[in-house]
Amino acid sequence: MTAPLADITVLDLTHVLAGPYATMILADLGARVIKVERPGLGDDTRAFPPIVDGQSAYFATINRGKSSIALDLKSPEDRVTFDALLARADILVENYRPGVMDRLGLGWDTLHARFPALIYGASSGFGHTGPDSQHPCYDMVVQARAGVMSITGEDGREPVRAGASIGDIVAGLFLANGLMAALHDRARTGLGRFVDVAMLDGQYAILEHAIALTGETGIAPGPNGARHPSITPFETFHARDGLFVIAAGNDALFGKLCDLLDLPLKTDPRFASNAARCTHHALLKRLIEAVTLGQPKAHWIAALRSAGIPTGPIQTIAEAMTDPQLIARNMIATVPQGDRVHHAAGNPIKMSGLEDSPEKRPAPLLDADRAAILQWLEEPSDGK
Amino acid sequence: MTAPLADITVLDLTHVLAGPYATMILADLGARVIKVERPGLGDDTRAFPPIVDGQSAYFATINRGKSSIALDLKSPEDRVTFDALLARADILVENYRPGVMDRLGLGWDTLHARFPALIYGASSGFGHTGPDSQHPCYDMVVQARAGVMSITGEDGREPVRAGASIGDIVAGLFLANGLMAALHDRARTGLGRFVDVAMLDGQYAILEHAIALTGETGIAPGPNGARHPSITPFETFHARDGLFVIAAGNDALFGKLCDLLDLPLKTDPRFASNAARCTHHALLKRLIEAVTLGQPKAHWIAALRSAGIPTGPIQTIAEAMTDPQLIARNMIATVPQGDRVHHAAGNPIKMSGLEDSPEKRPAPLLDADRAAILQWLEEPSDGK
Repeated sequence: MTAPLADITVLDLTHVLAGPYATMILADLGARVIKVERPGLGDDTRAFPPIVDGQSAYFATINRGKSSIALDLKSPEDRVTFDALLARADILVENYRPGVMDRLGLGWDTLHARFPALIYGASSGFGHTGPDSQHPCYDMVVQARAGVMSITGEDGREPVRAGASIGDIVAGLFLANGLMAALHDRARTGLGRFVDVAMLDGQYAILEHAIALTGETGIAPGPNGARHPSITPFETFHARDGLFVIAAGNDALFGKLCDLLDLPLKTDPRFASNAARCTHHALLKRLIEAVTLGQPKAHWIAALRSAGIPTGPIQTIAEAMTDPQLIARNMIATVPQGDRVHHAAGNPIKMSGLEDSPEKRPAPLLDADRAAILQWLEEPSDGK
Repeated sequence: MTAPLADITVLDLTHVLAGPYATMILADLGARVIKVERPGLGDDTRAFPPIVDGQSAYFATINRGKSSIALDLKSPEDRVTFDALLARADILVENYRPGVMDRLGLGWDTLHARFPALIYGASSGFGHTGPDSQHPCYDMVVQARAGVMSITGEDGREPVRAGASIGDIVAGLFLANGLMAALHDRARTGLGRFVDVAMLDGQYAILEHAIALTGETGIAPGPNGARHPSITPFETFHARDGLFVIAAGNDALFGKLCDLLDLPLKTDPRFASNAARCTHHALLKRLIEAVTLGQPKAHWIAALRSAGIPTGPIQTIAEAMTDPQLIARNMIATVPQGDRVHHAAGNPIKMSGLEDSPEKRPAPLLDADRAAILQWLEEPSDGK
């Protein structure tokens, strides 16, 4: 079996994170992704730390398995090459500020008229419509504005950002979804579509429960630290040697937890229902920790697992990189560069018939694939 | 134009969040999604607060536009109906603990032999392979274990979870991507594929920069509160009436910021490069706040926007629900229930030719579509 997107060519004008993350997903699923980069510097992240032997580890991990050609889209000569690429591509992806592609004569309307089967994907901070479409954006701006930061952090303290760049990454995930839906549609209609994903919209779209709650009560929730806002006990607890997680999501699991810890709380009216436990969560935490402080984390995690109660360690990224489950799932991946490797996450989409080596293909040096790409453009194609 | 997935039927055995989020994306893109729920109670989230007029707002927002039939998969009679549904479905999605579907005689191998064109999507806590495959899981367990919590929160304090349930939601986003890639592949091969997404893998896959950094340095990063770990100034700042965000991501933006605030720092060696600014970030924050404390947030956000510097408010969810940009993007959506509405996020995948009303279709009552579904099964189909 071949990879599911093995017949798809993506023309990738994206830079930094949201767009490159979307095209990484497509590349991991087998698409040929051609990065079209500005001559001289290329994608901004080629200069992002950590830099190793002159190449950015950050760039390498997100751009593994892609090829690169440097083209100046304002040069008439390079535009001839770019036009030839457009004629062969299935998907164009860009994450410029809205309007940039139009000013280059490469907006959706123009391209759709010239290449009706081309799918056009755009990721931007605020989207291609609306009053704030033209404002510059970074990850934290949308985490803050959509409300994600308002529910992240500790009660009574200043809000914090989610440590992962979910403003960019969630937008990249939605964009890849839209592009593949358009691919399915094109098989029937022969026509491409314009897909427009805003980082701000993506952040708002992950707030499900909090939006439903705010809508019903009129009261916006605040941050809850490491505690689930409406399930108890569902938070971090201290063992003798540090913190770990217990997530006893219903009465049956709470009963098992009480049995395991020898705590006579199941019939105590303060803890008999989830609603009661939520009201008395601070007291319940102390009662549980009075027991858990007596043994190390590993003891409790093993005991809770045996009892079927969701639990686990709070790992640093260094610890996660040696996690047997993540290793077994090929998630602890490497991207080669010369005689060394960069560390990266594997492809979380496991699929029958899809190769899943933790050793990924390298990321391209700037313009490294120019000759191969130009030669490919000379080859006969089946109408593309 | 019709919706891109208008010809696709999804048999949805999922419950709670990761699976239903994936099928919500497919439904928003036009797929017919048939929730197959256990008789009596249905999806667990039908009982999740907030409950309004007997229906869960939480359930309604995630399950808008789907239909429902109650089937007991252990009843021979209901299995006849389920088999008829399998013969007509393009995609089956479930998020049971691995092994549950096999014990029902509905595992991938069995179904693939009987319905070769059926695509099978599974979401689970730890995936269908690996030593921890059978462990129970909730969102916070994977946020903690993959390392997301270790970089979220304030330096020197206990780690916190990202307030949004990204453990589930990111898995749902990856699963939808995998299913649509399999759809594209099936158009060529006629064969379905098995797609297996673990919540733990999904969390590890959003850590890009932190993994690259840990891999190169051997030192796992810690939490940085609301500050970007490697760009300065890129954090929250106090204005006279509260916090707002400034994200000056490069030297040019920092120069503009100094001009705007009338701070003579551009040539100060402590602040002349991003690396120097990162070293002296605490001092720089005080120097900037000495100015920003003099005016309210709205003043600074307007001034920074005029200067082209990324900025924005830190909004509560109630504030985000009245944000003009999110309204213009149809993201402030409602799901009807009787003569009232639930509040939800719109579809962040904007696509030419795809209807994008902020008024979503209702979520189904349990078993509400039984008669219509049974009648549809009687209708002639083109080989499906």
